[in-house]
Amino acid sequence: MENSILFFQLAALGVSVLSFGVALWLYTWVKAQPKGDHKVETIGDYIRRGANTFLKREYSILARFAGIVAILILLFIPTPIWKGAADNLVMAISFIIGTIFSALSGKVGIQVATIANRKSAVAAQKGIKPAFLAGFRGGAVMGMAVVGTSLLGVTAVFMITKDATAILGFSFGASSLALFAKAGGGIFTKTADISADLVGKVELGIPEDDPRNPAVIADNVGDNVGDVAGMGADLFDSNVASMAAALVMALSLDGANPGKNVITVFCYATIGLFASIVGVGTAKMGKHDNPTHALNSSTYVTTVIYAILTAAATYLFSFEWRIWAAAAIGLAVGTIIGIASDYFTDDSKHPVHYVANASKSGPAFTILSGVSYGFLSVLPAMVGIAAAAFAAYLLCAPLGPGYAMFGISMSAVGMLSIVGMIISNDAYGPIVDNARGLVEMASLGEHALDVTDSLDSAGNTVKAVTKGFAIAAAGLTVIALLGAFTTEVNEAAKALGLHDRMISGFDIMAPDVFFGLLVGAAIPAVFSAMLMLGVDRNAQRMVSEIHRQFNTIAGLKEGKSGVEPEYDKCIDIATVGALKELIPAGLMAIIATLVVGFIGGVQAIGGYLTGNIVSGLLLALFMSNSGGLWDNSKKYIESGKHGGRGSDAHKAAVVGDTVGDPFKDTAGPSINTQITVVSLIASLMSTVFLTTSLF
Amino acid sequence: MENSILFFQLAALGVSVLSFGVALWLYTWVKAQPKGDHKVETIGDYIRRGANTFLKREYSILARFAGIVAILILLFIPTPIWKGAADNLVMAISFIIGTIFSALSGKVGIQVATIANRKSAVAAQKGIKPAFLAGFRGGAVMGMAVVGTSLLGVTAVFMITKDATAILGFSFGASSLALFAKAGGGIFTKTADISADLVGKVELGIPEDDPRNPAVIADNVGDNVGDVAGMGADLFDSNVASMAAALVMALSLDGANPGKNVITVFCYATIGLFASIVGVGTAKMGKHDNPTHALNSSTYVTTVIYAILTAAATYLFSFEWRIWAAAAIGLAVGTIIGIASDYFTDDSKHPVHYVANASKSGPAFTILSGVSYGFLSVLPAMVGIAAAAFAAYLLCAPLGPGYAMFGISMSAVGMLSIVGMIISNDAYGPIVDNARGLVEMASLGEHALDVTDSLDSAGNTVKAVTKGFAIAAAGLTVIALLGAFTTEVNEAAKALGLHDRMISGFDIMAPDVFFGLLVGAAIPAVFSAMLMLGVDRNAQRMVSEIHRQFNTIAGLKEGKSGVEPEYDKCIDIATVGALKELIPAGLMAIIATLVVGFIGGVQAIGGYLTGNIVSGLLLALFMSNSGGLWDNSKKYIESGKHGGRGSDAHKAAVVGDTVGDPFKDTAGPSINTQITVVSLIASLMSTVFLTTSLF
Repeated sequence: MENSILFFQLAALGVSVLSFGVALWLYTWVKAQPKGDHKVETIGDYIRRGANTFLKREYSILARFAGIVAILILLFIPTPIWKGAADNLVMAISFIIGTIFSALSGKVGIQVATIANRKSAVAAQKGIKPAFLAGFRGGAVMGMAVVGTSLLGVTAVFMITKDATAILGFSFGASSLALFAKAGGGIFTKTADISADLVGKVELGIPEDDPRNPAVIADNVGDNVGDVAGMGADLFDSNVASMAAALVMALSLDGANPGKNVITVFCYATIGLFASIVGVGTAKMGKHDNPTHALNSSTYVTTVIYAILTAAATYLFSFEWRIWAAAAIGLAVGTIIGIASDYFTDDSKHPVHYVANASKSGPAFTILSGVSYGFLSVLPAMVGIAAAAFAAYLLCAPLGPGYAMFGISMSAVGMLSIVGMIISNDAYGPIVDNARGLVEMASLGEHALDVTDSLDSAGNTVKAVTKGFAIAAAGLTVIALLGAFTTEVNEAAKALGLHDRMISGFDIMAPDVFFGLLVGAAIPAVFSAMLMLGVDRNAQRMVSEIHRQFNTIAGLKEGKSGVEPEYDKCIDIATVGALKELIPAGLMAIIATLVVGFIGGVQAIGGYLTGNIVSGLLLALFMSNSGGLWDNSKKYIESGKHGGRGSDAHKAAVVGDTVGDPFKDTAGPSINTQITVVSLIASLMSTVFLTTSLF
Repeated sequence: MENSILFFQLAALGVSVLSFGVALWLYTWVKAQPKGDHKVETIGDYIRRGANTFLKREYSILARFAGIVAILILLFIPTPIWKGAADNLVMAISFIIGTIFSALSGKVGIQVATIANRKSAVAAQKGIKPAFLAGFRGGAVMGMAVVGTSLLGVTAVFMITKDATAILGFSFGASSLALFAKAGGGIFTKTADISADLVGKVELGIPEDDPRNPAVIADNVGDNVGDVAGMGADLFDSNVASMAAALVMALSLDGANPGKNVITVFCYATIGLFASIVGVGTAKMGKHDNPTHALNSSTYVTTVIYAILTAAATYLFSFEWRIWAAAAIGLAVGTIIGIASDYFTDDSKHPVHYVANASKSGPAFTILSGVSYGFLSVLPAMVGIAAAAFAAYLLCAPLGPGYAMFGISMSAVGMLSIVGMIISNDAYGPIVDNARGLVEMASLGEHALDVTDSLDSAGNTVKAVTKGFAIAAAGLTVIALLGAFTTEVNEAAKALGLHDRMISGFDIMAPDVFFGLLVGAAIPAVFSAMLMLGVDRNAQRMVSEIHRQFNTIAGLKEGKSGVEPEYDKCIDIATVGALKELIPAGLMAIIATLVVGFIGGVQAIGGYLTGNIVSGLLLALFMSNSGGLWDNSKKYIESGKHGGRGSDAHKAAVVGDTVGDPFKDTAGPSINTQITVVSLIASLMSTVFLTTSLF
C-alpha cells in the first residue's frame, strides 16, 4: 500500500502542477491580448490599484489576526503545549500554510481579473467571441489556481505529517482567511455598489458605470475584491474542508496504514481537477452560440469526464463501487440544486415574472414576493442535500462501521470535484461586469456595450447556479465535518484514556445537545445581521461623500470635460469601513462556539454544529436566491417590461435589488464560510472541550 | 391518590367555572356601558356583521375539514380500526371536542370584541380611564373564556378517558383549528390592512380609518378575525398542548395509578388560571397612570401571585420543589423574552431609532436595517428558551428517569400559566384599534381621537411583549411535545410487543434523523411563503377593487356627503381570498409530516420535529420582531421625527410597515401553530409510523 499511496499522491501533485501550468498559459494568453487606448488603461489601472490597496490592507490585518490565532494554536491545540509541543507546532504551521495558500489564490485571482477586464473590454469592440474568451480565461486562471493550490496543499501537508488533524489545521487556516476575506470583500463591494446606484441611478438618473459617479471605480474594485477574491477564498475553503473531512475519516477507517480509503480520496480529487482542466480547455463559443450556453456546456463536459474517469479508476484500482456511487450522487445533486436555484432567479421563469409584476404595486410588494419566493427556494436544496446525505449513508453503511459517514464525505468530495470549473464560471462574472464598466467609462461605443451587456447577463445567470452549488457543497461538507468531529473526539478520548467519554452520536433529547442546537441556530442570523448592518453603516457614509462631491466639485454633475470626481475618496471609505466591520461578525461566531463548548462540552458542540448547519443553510439559500431574484426582476423590467426603466415598477424593483445586494453578495455567501469555520474549530478543539467543560 | 386526584380535578373544574363567571360578569359590564350615537352603532354593526360572516364561512369550511380528519382518525389512529375501534372512537371524539372548544372561544372573543370596540370609542369622549377599562375588560372576557375552556376541556377529557393520548387528540383538534383560523384570519386582516393603507395613506394621502376608504371596514373586521379570534385560537392551542405534553409524561411516570405528577400538572394549571383571574380583576388605570403601565402591572401581579401560590401548594401537598423551580424558570424566562422582544420594537430604544434614521436614505435601508435587527432579535429568545430547557432538565433529572423531560414540560406549563392575562392584554389591542377607527369614522372629536390613539399605542407596545411570550411558550411546549412523542412511541412499541423498536432518543448522526432534520427545517419557510403569497395575491385583488370604487363612484374621493363606498365588496374579497388561501399552507405542513414519517419512520420524525422547531422559532421570532420594529419606526416618524408624516423617511417607513404587516400578523404567529400541529400529528401517528415506514 505504501507504494501505491505514494503513486496517487504524486499523481495529485502532478496534476496540481499541471493546473498551474495551464493557469500560467491562460494568464500569458490573456496578457497577450490587445491593449486598449489610454483611457481604458488609465481606468483599468485605477481599478487594479484600488483592488490591490484593499487586498494589501486587508491581508495585513488578517496576518496579525492569523498570527495571534497561530500562537493560540501553538499553546493549546490539540493539547496544551505543556503536554507535548510537537503536535501543536505541526498544527500551527499547517494553519499558517492554509492562510497563506488561501491568500495567495485570492491574490492571483485579483491579479489576472484586473487585467482580463480590460482585455475583454477592448476585445468587445471586435465581437462577442474574443470578449467572452478573454473574460472566461481570466476566470479560469483563478479556477485553476484555487483548485491546484488546494489539492497541492492538502497533499503536501498530508505527505509530510501523515496526520489528518494537521489537514484540519490547514483547512482551518484556509477557512478563517476565507471567513474574513468574504466578509470584508462582501462589505466593500456592496457598500460601493449600493451607494453608487442609490445616488447615481436613483437620485440623479445617470447610467450605471457613469464616470461622473465618484463611487463608480470603487464599485468595480468591489467586484474584484468581493466576487473574485472572496468567492475564490470561499470555494478554496469548501474544497479543502471536504478533502480534510474525508481524509480524517478515511484514515480512521484505514487504521495505522493509510490504504484504500485514503487513496480513493486522493484519486477522486485528482480526477476532479483533471476534469476541470479539460473542461476549461474546451470552453469557447461556437458559431451560433450564446455565452450562457458556452459556460454551461463546459460544466457538463467536466461532469461527464469526472463520472467516467472515476468509474474507470474504481474499476481499475478496485475501489468500492458504493463509494463511487456516493460521489456520483453528490455531483448529481449539486447539479440539480444549481438548476433549482436557477429556476428561482432566471428571468424566463415564473418567480422573476411574479416579482416584476408585483413591483407595479410598489416596493413593499417587491420585497414581500421576493422574500416569499426566497423562502420557497430553500425547499429543493434542503431536500436535495438531505436526500444526498441519506442516500450516501445508506449506500456506504454496508461497507462496515464508519463507512456511512465516510460515504457522506465522499459525496461532498464528488460534489466539489468540478469546483475548478465552477470557480472559472464564477470569476468570469465580475470580470465581464468590470469590462462593461470599462466600455462605458472609456466610451468604447454602443456595439461594445451591447456585447459586454450580453456577457454580463450570462454571468448573472450562471452565478445563480454556482451560488446554489457552493451552498449545497458547503452543506454536504459540514455534514461530513460533523462526522470528522465525532472521529476527532473519539481519537482524542482514546488518546487520553477516557474510553467512557467516547461518543457514538448526539441525542437530540439530551439537554446539552438541545441547548447547543438552539444557540447554534441563532448564530448565522446574528452573523448575517452584523454584516448587513456593516454594509448599511458604511453605505450611509459613502452616500454622504458622493453627495459632497456632487455638491462641491464644480461641473461634475454636468459632465464638464476634464472634471473628474475624487474616486480615491470613495475607495478609501469602502476600504476603511470594510476593514473595520470584517472582524466582529467572524469573531462573534468563533467566540460563541468556544462559549458553548466550554459550557456544554462535546455534546453541546454536536448540537451547536447541527443547529448552525440547519439554520445556516436555510438563511444562505434564502438570502442568495431572493437576492438573485430581485436582481433579475429589476433587469427584466429594464428590458422593457412593465414600463421599463424609470417606471414605478422599475423604481420598486431597484429597492428590491438594493435589499438583495447585501443578501446575495455579503451575508448569504459568507454564511457558508461561517459554518465551515465553526465546524473546523469544533474539531480542532475536541480535546479541549472533552476535558474542560462546565457540564 | 384516587381521592386527591379527584379533588384537584374538581378544583380545576371549579376554577374554570369561576373564570366563566368572571367572563360573564365582564361581558355584562361591557354591554352595560353607554351606547353611542347612531353613526357609531351603524359602523359598529358593519364590523360586527363582517366579522361574523367571515367566521361563519370559515368555520363551515373548517367543519368539513375537521369532519374528514375525524373520519381518518377514526379509521387509523392510534391503530387501524380493524385492530380495535374503542380507542379510535375516543380519539375522534376528543379531536372534535377540541375543534369545537377552540372555535367557541374564538366566537366568544369576536362576540365581545365587536361590542367592546364601540363602548371604548364612546367612553373615549369622556376620558382615557373608562375607555381603557372598556377595552381591557372586553379583552379579558376572551382571556377568561380561552383559559377556562382549555382547562375545562383538558380536565373533562382526562376525567372521562383517563388516557393521555386522548388529550393529545383534544389538543390536536384545538391546534388544527388554530392553524387554519390563524392563517385565515391573518390573511384576511393583512389583505385589508395593506390594501387600505396602500391606496388610502400612500396613494391618496387620506388618514387611516377615513370612512371614504372602501377597505376601512374590512380592515377593522380584520383586526377582530385575525388578532382576536386568531390569537385566541393560537394561545388556546399552546395552552392545551403544554398541558397535554405534561400529562402524557406525568402519566407515564405515575404508571397505572395517576398520582403526584398528574396532580401537580392540574394544580399548577389551576393556580395559573386563578392568578389570571385576580390579575384581570386588579387591572385599572390609577390617577397618574398610563395604559401601558396598567397592562404591565396587572401582568406582574399575576406572575407574583402565581409564584407564591404554587410555592404554597408545593409546600402544602409535598410536590417536588425541583418541578416547582422548573415551572418558575419557565415563567421567568417567558417574561425575560417578552422584555427582549420589547427592546427590539419599543420606540424609545435604539433599534427603532436606527431604522427610522436609516429610512431617510430610502426604503431599501428601512428593509435592510429592519431585517438585520430582526435577525439579531432571535438571539436572546433562542438562548433563553435553550437555557430554560437546559435548566429545567438538569433540575429535574435527579428525580429519576423520565423526570427531565417532564421538567421541561412543566417549565412550559409555568410559562403558560399567566396566559389568561396575556390573552387579555393581547385582545385589548385590536379592540382599542377598532375603537380608534370608530372614533375617526363616526367623527367623535379630537379629544376622543387622542385618547384612543394613546390606548392604541399602548396596545402595540404590549403586543410585542405578548407575541414574544407566545412564541417562547410555543417553543418550550414543542420541546415538551418532542418528549411526549418519544413517550408515545415507546408506549406504542410496548403495546405492540416491539420492545426492540423502543427509542431512547434521536441521534443526529443517524441518517434518517438528519434527513428529517433538514426537511423539517425547510417547512416553516415554505409555510410562511405560502401565507405571504396568499396575502400578496389577495391584496392585489383588493387594491384593484378600491381603485375601481374611487374611479367609478362619483363624489367618493371628494367626500361628498351621503356618498358611501361599497364596504361589503372589500369584506367579501378579503373573505373569499382568505378562505381560498388558508387550507393549502396548513395542508402542506401536515402532508410533509406524513411523507417524512412514512419514508423514514419515527427516527426521521424525531429529526423532522427538531428541524421544524429550530427553524420555526427562528423565523417566527425574526418575522414578529422585524414586523413590530417597522410598525413602530413608522409611528416614531409619524410622531414628528425625521420630517414626520409625508416626508421621504415616512414614505420609506410605510414600505417597511407594509412588508412587516404579513410578517408579524400573518406568517410569524402562524408558525407557532404550525409547529404545534406537526408535533401533535407526530405523536398521534406514532403507532402508524412505527409499523409502516419505508426505511
